[in-house]
Amino acid sequence: MASDTLSKKIRCKAAVLWEVNTPLVIETIEVEPPRAGEVRIKILATGVCKTDAYLLDRVDPSKNYPVILGHEGAGIVESVGEGVTNVAPGDHVVPLYYPQCYQCKFCKNPKTNFCSKVRATQMKGVMPDGTSRFRCNGKKLFHFMGCSTFSEYTVVADVSVCKVDSTAPSEKVCLLGCSISTGYGAVVNTAQVESGSTCAVWGLGAVGLAVIMGCKIAGAKRIIGVDINSDKFKVAEDFGCTEFINPKDYDKPIQEVIVEKTDGGCDYTFECIGSVEAMRASLDACHKGWGVSTILGMTPPGAELTAKPYSIVTGCVWKGSVFGGWKSQDSLPTLVEEYMQNKLKVDEFVSFTLPLAKINEGFDYMRKGVGIKSVVIFD
Amino acid sequence: MASDTLSKKIRCKAAVLWEVNTPLVIETIEVEPPRAGEVRIKILATGVCKTDAYLLDRVDPSKNYPVILGHEGAGIVESVGEGVTNVAPGDHVVPLYYPQCYQCKFCKNPKTNFCSKVRATQMKGVMPDGTSRFRCNGKKLFHFMGCSTFSEYTVVADVSVCKVDSTAPSEKVCLLGCSISTGYGAVVNTAQVESGSTCAVWGLGAVGLAVIMGCKIAGAKRIIGVDINSDKFKVAEDFGCTEFINPKDYDKPIQEVIVEKTDGGCDYTFECIGSVEAMRASLDACHKGWGVSTILGMTPPGAELTAKPYSIVTGCVWKGSVFGGWKSQDSLPTLVEEYMQNKLKVDEFVSFTLPLAKINEGFDYMRKGVGIKSVVIFD
Repeated sequence: MASDTLSKKIRCKAAVLWEVNTPLVIETIEVEPPRAGEVRIKILATGVCKTDAYLLDRVDPSKNYPVILGHEGAGIVESVGEGVTNVAPGDHVVPLYYPQCYQCKFCKNPKTNFCSKVRATQMKGVMPDGTSRFRCNGKKLFHFMGCSTFSEYTVVADVSVCKVDSTAPSEKVCLLGCSISTGYGAVVNTAQVESGSTCAVWGLGAVGLAVIMGCKIAGAKRIIGVDINSDKFKVAEDFGCTEFINPKDYDKPIQEVIVEKTDGGCDYTFECIGSVEAMRASLDACHKGWGVSTILGMTPPGAELTAKPYSIVTGCVWKGSVFGGWKSQDSLPTLVEEYMQNKLKVDEFVSFTLPLAKINEGFDYMRKGVGIKSVVIFD
Repeated sequence: MASDTLSKKIRCKAAVLWEVNTPLVIETIEVEPPRAGEVRIKILATGVCKTDAYLLDRVDPSKNYPVILGHEGAGIVESVGEGVTNVAPGDHVVPLYYPQCYQCKFCKNPKTNFCSKVRATQMKGVMPDGTSRFRCNGKKLFHFMGCSTFSEYTVVADVSVCKVDSTAPSEKVCLLGCSISTGYGAVVNTAQVESGSTCAVWGLGAVGLAVIMGCKIAGAKRIIGVDINSDKFKVAEDFGCTEFINPKDYDKPIQEVIVEKTDGGCDYTFECIGSVEAMRASLDACHKGWGVSTILGMTPPGAELTAKPYSIVTGCVWKGSVFGGWKSQDSLPTLVEEYMQNKLKVDEFVSFTLPLAKINEGFDYMRKGVGIKSVVIFD
């Protein structure tokens, strides 16, 4: 990278969320150099994800405003702080909202991909030392999910980034930073769908489609897509969905419809909406004795699940995962390779590519359910 | 067995529940001979179990009264109906409220111990042909859980009984027909507790103690017993419990107490009460990322679980089992052998032995939390 930026503040464009329920505003911001254990990245592309809209549309209980959102990015390392060994300037990288430090008790446990290393500060919207690297007109901007990819330059903790194949297109592999990996991993890591299974997927957005792709790869026999937007059914079929159900077409609870259609219920169900009603339906649509329901969706603060204890006692299992259960630094390079080898669909998820100036259009498409993913490409 | 009863009605003593919220009444009843696919058993001993009290104390929505309760028995086959091949007169047997037919889709699936063969009629309190084998003063009595062991003689479906070691004492191995197998199996089959784990068990009744025994056998490092009756702590220690917590001793939710004491939560928790509040606490007391909470308790009709979706999304698993996940005909003989080889505690569960005439005392002990199990021994 250009050595003229090294150890200096970089002035660049970023999309800033000044307060909840307002559009993002393109601003010129200042990005400080990385401190010890930090990495400054020139972002090349970023997906627009529901979790960003979550903060954009609702009052975040953490009150971390103003903020630079974005957590589904890809870019090139501009510079690294003292002690950083996992990436070097010029490396093509993907920021990781679920970091992997290899040292905490979570990282040492093969059963989880959670990492506690920078969790506390990440939740507060700051770097591990408690401060921000972003300023706009003298005002501090918060970081988001340890990534803040809606900026031409960002700074992340070294545990929150990993190197990937430099020949992989950034405007595609950015989506492996969240939605595609989340859905695919929920199938192969969390639920561990077996060949011949009957599956149902609530919500045919990007995560749901990635679940469908995973179920197809796993050899599922029936893959039932559930969505109240029938426009999504055609594309779901392209991803491997074998049947479509629109709950609006039925007078009775959709779980009853599915149990009837599947002679007792599904082997595996996935909730990719973030609705507690859909979570309950997806548990109740499981086959007694062995059905596994996996929750992927993020619910609003204070949401409560409800269920009949009987469903669980008689053998249905309720589980969930974040980022598809992938240990992030270990797995992302492999996921990129699988894409490069045409084992994973990625290009097919990209419906719109936008310049940063039009990032709000990406959120509009998402809210309206038009297309699958919008990717912002930085010049 | 005496051939003088063969193909004839047998007049014998039984404890009859005439209506809800009344004591059992010892009556002389008539037990018809077994029809095709049925087995008539001379019951030698039966445990008094909470699921019996459940029907005794609450209005059963199925309204199957009058009824002969009891589902935790052991005895000797008196005679068999046409086509019965798995047991023969003179065999020592244990009745099975979770049958195993080897033919239904559940029996063919290794993931579950549920069997659908006689389910519909068992729930209605009748034999598979839709009729009862019990009469008292000309009035039909309902069967219960496919077993009805509170009678000197009972009739069960052939899929609901299996042969066990004839040298095993009936007054002990009857408890392998429910509570001990339920708790032990939840540990080794459902949760699959690993050596070195930290576990917590809600409810230190017979099932909870069997869970503790299972955790100890599995090599758990810490086994935390949770009960509001501190009198139960001493005996729990004898079964392997390493720590005791009485929720009444704390002002804050018990899950918070346990998460603090265990540096983040338990690897495995077990709910053996049948309380939705305890079920929620046992999920929330699990360690983020990998904790598994197993529900064993039976809740009242209409009870609803609640939970934060976040608990499940971030990696805690909610599961449950009935009869410990054991495929009953396959497993019960082995469980009896493990007892005979001193690998499983059984004698230690028996606090009281009673004649049939005093069966109501057994329910009194259970309601008061005195002792562990009462076993009724038939003369």
